[in-house]
Amino acid sequence: MPQIDLNGIFPPIPTPFVGGDVAYDKLAANIEKWSQTGLKGLVVMGSNGEYVYLSAEEKRKLVEKTVQLTPEHMLVIAGTGCESTKETIELTRDCADRGAHAALVVTPHYYAGKMNEAAMLAYFTAVADQSPIPILLYNVPKFTHVNMTFRVVAQLSNHPNIVGIKDSTGNVIQLGEFANNVAADFNLLVGTAGALFGGLALGCAGGVLALANVAPQNCVKIYELIKQGDYEAARQLQLKMIPLNQAVTATYGVPGLKATMDMLGYFGGDPRPPLLPSSEKDKSEIREILIKAELLGG
Amino acid sequence: MPQIDLNGIFPPIPTPFVGGDVAYDKLAANIEKWSQTGLKGLVVMGSNGEYVYLSAEEKRKLVEKTVQLTPEHMLVIAGTGCESTKETIELTRDCADRGAHAALVVTPHYYAGKMNEAAMLAYFTAVADQSPIPILLYNVPKFTHVNMTFRVVAQLSNHPNIVGIKDSTGNVIQLGEFANNVAADFNLLVGTAGALFGGLALGCAGGVLALANVAPQNCVKIYELIKQGDYEAARQLQLKMIPLNQAVTATYGVPGLKATMDMLGYFGGDPRPPLLPSSEKDKSEIREILIKAELLGG
Amino acid sequence: MPQIDLNGIFPPIPTPFVGGDVAYDKLAANIEKWSQTGLKGLVVMGSNGEYVYLSAEEKRKLVEKTVQLTPEHMLVIAGTGCESTKETIELTRDCADRGAHAALVVTPHYYAGKMNEAAMLAYFTAVADQSPIPILLYNVPKFTHVNMTFRVVAQLSNHPNIVGIKDSTGNVIQLGEFANNVAADFNLLVGTAGALFGGLALGCAGGVLALANVAPQNCVKIYELIKQGDYEAARQLQLKMIPLNQAVTATYGVPGLKATMDMLGYFGGDPRPPLLPSSEKDKSEIREILIKAELLGG
Amino acid sequence: MPQIDLNGIFPPIPTPFVGGDVAYDKLAANIEKWSQTGLKGLVVMGSNGEYVYLSAEEKRKLVEKTVQLTPEHMLVIAGTGCESTKETIELTRDCADRGAHAALVVTPHYYAGKMNEAAMLAYFTAVADQSPIPILLYNVPKFTHVNMTFRVVAQLSNHPNIVGIKDSTGNVIQLGEFANNVAADFNLLVGTAGALFGGLALGCAGGVLALANVAPQNCVKIYELIKQGDYEAARQLQLKMIPLNQAVTATYGVPGLKATMDMLGYFGGDPRPPLLPSSEKDKSEIREILIKAELLGG
Repeated sequence: MPQIDLNGIFPPIPTPFVGGDVAYDKLAANIEKWSQTGLKGLVVMGSNGEYVYLSAEEKRKLVEKTVQLTPEHMLVIAGTGCESTKETIELTRDCADRGAHAALVVTPHYYAGKMNEAAMLAYFTAVADQSPIPILLYNVPKFTHVNMTFRVVAQLSNHPNIVGIKDSTGNVIQLGEFANNVAADFNLLVGTAGALFGGLALGCAGGVLALANVAPQNCVKIYELIKQGDYEAARQLQLKMIPLNQAVTATYGVPGLKATMDMLGYFGGDPRPPLLPSSEKDKSEIREILIKAELLGG
Repeated sequence: MPQIDLNGIFPPIPTPFVGGDVAYDKLAANIEKWSQTGLKGLVVMGSNGEYVYLSAEEKRKLVEKTVQLTPEHMLVIAGTGCESTKETIELTRDCADRGAHAALVVTPHYYAGKMNEAAMLAYFTAVADQSPIPILLYNVPKFTHVNMTFRVVAQLSNHPNIVGIKDSTGNVIQLGEFANNVAADFNLLVGTAGALFGGLALGCAGGVLALANVAPQNCVKIYELIKQGDYEAARQLQLKMIPLNQAVTATYGVPGLKATMDMLGYFGGDPRPPLLPSSEKDKSEIREILIKAELLGG
Repeated sequence: MPQIDLNGIFPPIPTPFVGGDVAYDKLAANIEKWSQTGLKGLVVMGSNGEYVYLSAEEKRKLVEKTVQLTPEHMLVIAGTGCESTKETIELTRDCADRGAHAALVVTPHYYAGKMNEAAMLAYFTAVADQSPIPILLYNVPKFTHVNMTFRVVAQLSNHPNIVGIKDSTGNVIQLGEFANNVAADFNLLVGTAGALFGGLALGCAGGVLALANVAPQNCVKIYELIKQGDYEAARQLQLKMIPLNQAVTATYGVPGLKATMDMLGYFGGDPRPPLLPSSEKDKSEIREILIKAELLGG
Repeated sequence: MPQIDLNGIFPPIPTPFVGGDVAYDKLAANIEKWSQTGLKGLVVMGSNGEYVYLSAEEKRKLVEKTVQLTPEHMLVIAGTGCESTKETIELTRDCADRGAHAALVVTPHYYAGKMNEAAMLAYFTAVADQSPIPILLYNVPKFTHVNMTFRVVAQLSNHPNIVGIKDSTGNVIQLGEFANNVAADFNLLVGTAGALFGGLALGCAGGVLALANVAPQNCVKIYELIKQGDYEAARQLQLKMIPLNQAVTATYGVPGLKATMDMLGYFGGDPRPPLLPSSEKDKSEIREILIKAELLGG
């Protein structure tokens, strides 16, 4: 099975739309900027990539283009989770064919009440068995209303083709339970920047962070400070980043993340409907937060 | 705009799979049976139809076949809600082309926190504006974690191409609020058989009921008794149906509904993974419930 | 064991405060008005009575006074549920000594996660065993975050001293499950006026309704219409009452209920802190609702 | 206003019952043991103290006795939160009279939907204004279903008599928001041992931890390691403590905490009804966890 080094920071990149279509020139420009910031790689078609709004065809093309546009020193992880086992396997294979280095597979969730431990084990085992590339579990109850228990994660961590988990709960107690129970070479990735310091201090390998789209250097800096043992400096930077992270995740969501990108020299643009673009009031509040975070001049 | 008569009972039909593929012969046999029970029509690709597990191509073919297999005296309503506005419009048009009489459109929900009243209004208005067939709203917070308020429903009820709502909350207070505020010709459809009597008594036009897949005559009977003013007989039948309804919805879900169909002479079969088939223990409990409901001989 | 007739409508009466103390003259005036409206009795120290804000001594005196002030044709039911089994038993006995005809006992709830079926059965059995007066269960998950299952209610319904349940969920499916499983002489009481029509149509004995504090005649009328079999008139009155019921429960809570009482000739007054009195904006919205409900002249 | 040093670890001590009454000899023995472990003080009548099951009289006596039994080098913090503002103020004063050094005041919660920011501000300000001893806020949504926002906490942190908060959410993002916004001398106390390392690393002053009742030395050790800058050793000890902490909080609750005390040489005893004692199965699982945590010999 292929080895993959997941130590570091990954942004789950937004999908740029112009006139309703994916704008690959904008994507190219964004990747060019991200590639100079110390990021370990990119996650395409995560929750911040509006993956649920992309057609099957768009998804395949987006992965192909992202791989082509990304420099060799960076990994490309593709979000390939669909509701059905069959569709997930097909998409994972197609993304592998197009050069993705790993697949991030979200828990199926429409029938959340039926996604018990047995269903989870069967699902992820089937996907991992048939995937040519390593699988990362993706636990994001905020969107899925399903939480992966440490029992399930521990069991799946022993599968040779399941290499880690992105946990977006921000719950350090759960991260601790994962750490206590997973296989030794299994990678824990913090899924929200507000818990980056806490998660890294607890031993996580890295993070997949919405914030890393707009403040990649600061996210990478927190990572490096922890690796160097400078907890105090990491702590201070973590605290400084929390308000912006809340803004681009909990408060303003994907539209707010895209608006923030527009303010910071990336291309954000509008989300696809039914998501509504950020209001002027929201944008003005985001601007204030960016100024306080010293990412924008007052 | 086309007129449509929604007074009556509709089952949201399961999609039969054999060897992982949609089995149209099984579908034909089921429709043949349902067509002799007094049902007003069929809903294809609802939550019980595992619509989230069907590919774009499968969905189109399934609607085409269902329309062909359904006798003229019955309506075919197609579940066409996708996450993106664009995809929903495309699928609705394609289902109209294939003969569906109306479309049932679920609330988008992955970004539930952003599906506020403004987003809902914009979404359903766009879909209804561009649909050749009448639109039914579909409110099912159990699966979507989004609830449509009476304010939104009232406003949308004035759209000439939005003709009703399937409300699966079972909440008669909310149904009352809808009744108080919607346009006069707007159809309220009860979305769960446990609230059928309560909803019809409150003035609902009919019901879209998982239970109607396995006990269509009893559902139709409750409907007719209420229309005849025999509340006492309706009440008694309603109470008798509640345990089975709980079984095929809340407790055992789609796998349990399919298992029940197999016990009652319909084809149920297995759900698509990641849904797991009902266990033997579950099936045995369902059998007991069917015997008590006098739908199966002891 | 004592017999008790619970068929009819009961308001869970607010506790009037003047200058921070219970104002018995105001209570007397309210009871005088309620006693002329066809109500079956009064519930004192329910959730709308701010029972959690009354000291042990105040509770006893309030029940004593309420019994003295209430005419003989009406029942007085005392809310006696405390968190501990011991305190509930003591308060129930003391209320019986002071003349309460029955006790309404809410589920203990601080340790909601530990209030499983075994704990519930042990608790209510202990209370009922040691109570000189009949016990009514009180299920109000909105406040307690605990729901009584039909299994527990069914089992408790066989206790000779447990005579009924006030279910405030408004969930007619659950009421149906109760109806299917409880002992024949067990009384189901609807706990919210929005579900009064639905609950009575399903066979409930009556209702304990916040709305009955401010619109007792209308609540009694719905009850009588159902008993007479005039479902259509009952339905219409039910629909007309829903907006006001939402106002005095979900939207504006106890402060709103008290403000409404002040508008309709009862004494409402301020709630005890930390509850804040209704704002002028809230009051103005309530006034509009009362005008539309024809309880206040435009 | 009195100064108070909250840096360190505090157990929220269980209340020992024998034959249904508070057993002060058992309390004395427990305090004797705790006093030799490096704990900064004790919290009496917190959630783990079953405060909701104690009468007004019992509460006062329990505080009096606890103060008498506790050596001078330790603080005694009394949980004095009641539902009403008035009762909380009275209890806080009485506890101050009996020698408590500070009061821990939980958010009122029965009417959770009405406990908005304005109600919270008014409540805690009134209590702090009239308390002779410093006030600690107590945020425990698990039990109260109310969460204190950083806006409210920030504003209250400026009150001269409000000195800190026990936050039991375990949410390090929220702790970060608190840290970013509160007054400089305001004390953040972690409220669950699973987040102790994460919270201390983020700058919290200490912790009020159920786990500190049964593993005080380990909790104190984590605290000291962080203060010494030895994050790696702290991290390892934190991970080792998580399973036991989950056991004595989320999984087995107060009954489990008491059972654990009995296993480790403290007096735990039975909880008050309606809480049920731990089953033999639960106790056996706890024993396994204690052996793995090296707190009990295999």
